[in-house]
Amino acid sequence: MREVFQQELKEVRERLVEIASLVEASIENATRAFGESDVKLAEKVISDDNKIDELTVSLDELAINILARQQPVARDLRIVVSALRISASLERMGDMSEHIAQLARYRFPEKVVPKPLREIFGEMGKLDVEVAKKLTILLKTEDVKVAEQIRADDDRMDQLHQSVFDKVLGDSWKGGAEDTVDATLASRYHERFADHAVSIAKKVQYLATGDWQVPNTPQN
Amino acid sequence: MREVFQQELKEVRERLVEIASLVEASIENATRAFGESDVKLAEKVISDDNKIDELTVSLDELAINILARQQPVARDLRIVVSALRISASLERMGDMSEHIAQLARYRFPEKVVPKPLREIFGEMGKLDVEVAKKLTILLKTEDVKVAEQIRADDDRMDQLHQSVFDKVLGDSWKGGAEDTVDATLASRYHERFADHAVSIAKKVQYLATGDWQVPNTPQN
Repeated sequence: MREVFQQELKEVRERLVEIASLVEASIENATRAFGESDVKLAEKVISDDNKIDELTVSLDELAINILARQQPVARDLRIVVSALRISASLERMGDMSEHIAQLARYRFPEKVVPKPLREIFGEMGKLDVEVAKKLTILLKTEDVKVAEQIRADDDRMDQLHQSVFDKVLGDSWKGGAEDTVDATLASRYHERFADHAVSIAKKVQYLATGDWQVPNTPQN
Repeated sequence: MREVFQQELKEVRERLVEIASLVEASIENATRAFGESDVKLAEKVISDDNKIDELTVSLDELAINILARQQPVARDLRIVVSALRISASLERMGDMSEHIAQLARYRFPEKVVPKPLREIFGEMGKLDVEVAKKLTILLKTEDVKVAEQIRADDDRMDQLHQSVFDKVLGDSWKGGAEDTVDATLASRYHERFADHAVSIAKKVQYLATGDWQVPNTPQN
């Protein structure tokens, strides 16, 4: 029984890694579509998100199934419950990629990002891709050092998010309302993407260290 | 054992109702603070959110504890897992109230909402309060008709969300970048609040009818 259970936990983890890899591809494509106004790529991100949703639902079913059949306790139980939460966060990360792609599609053939913000959004996009890559590694290795790196990346993301508002609300901003709306939403989506990654990183850290960090509460 | 379990499920439900009542108070205060630029009330919403966070964490602990001790299966298991998810959504609804209050505090003593949008945001605020009230009733009664009403309210919210953008991107919009940023964020927070309520409503419907509606996937 125990061996079957370990095998099933392994499958849960592999599926989380699989979903995280899809999220990684999705944010990579979304930020490229966003930066380059590539409407085809944006559409790909939007349609690929269904796959992430389906895999999430099916992972949740597996986890509930394991709870029913194996009736895990203590640490094993927390692993399965955490998997349910991690899956919910990954699903939301996929949604953020999709939203970023939708902005690109919506403004096509115009660029979503007006010139004065391109550098900041370029960095935000790279950082989100970086965070997604680290997240996949974290779920594969459960290396808490990687979790720390994700939290540091998120701090940088918060600075970038703030700097978007500084630009948009500064005297030199010449953008119209459309530019302002797009910048506001895009910045929020980028920032939420990283937040969800931090929320997952905290859960993995908790599992590795037993140090419960109110993981249900991303502070923003 | 079965009787103890039923008692515990009752407690889980009572705690969800308690948290939902706090969320109800929080959105009621937040939207009033937002409409009336009441900075004291905004600060109350922000500090009260800690209470929601704490109750959520403690409910999650109770649910995990029940899983460990009672090892429920089938429908009982799904009830406990759903409670974990509902609690996560309630926690996020509290965050949305807090964000709305933060906007009010941030712009004080100015009003957050410029004149041409006051009517729309007035309706959005009322609708979110309405949704929160219905949610508390839904969690108390598990009446699926109430779940349907919440979904209908959310459809109306989506229309209002769209109408904010129509205004802001229309020719008659005279707001500066700050107004545009505030309107964009506030509209998003109001709309997400209702989305989370729908996500909870779907879970309650599912529990009542057994009809699984991909409840992990709010589509936006």
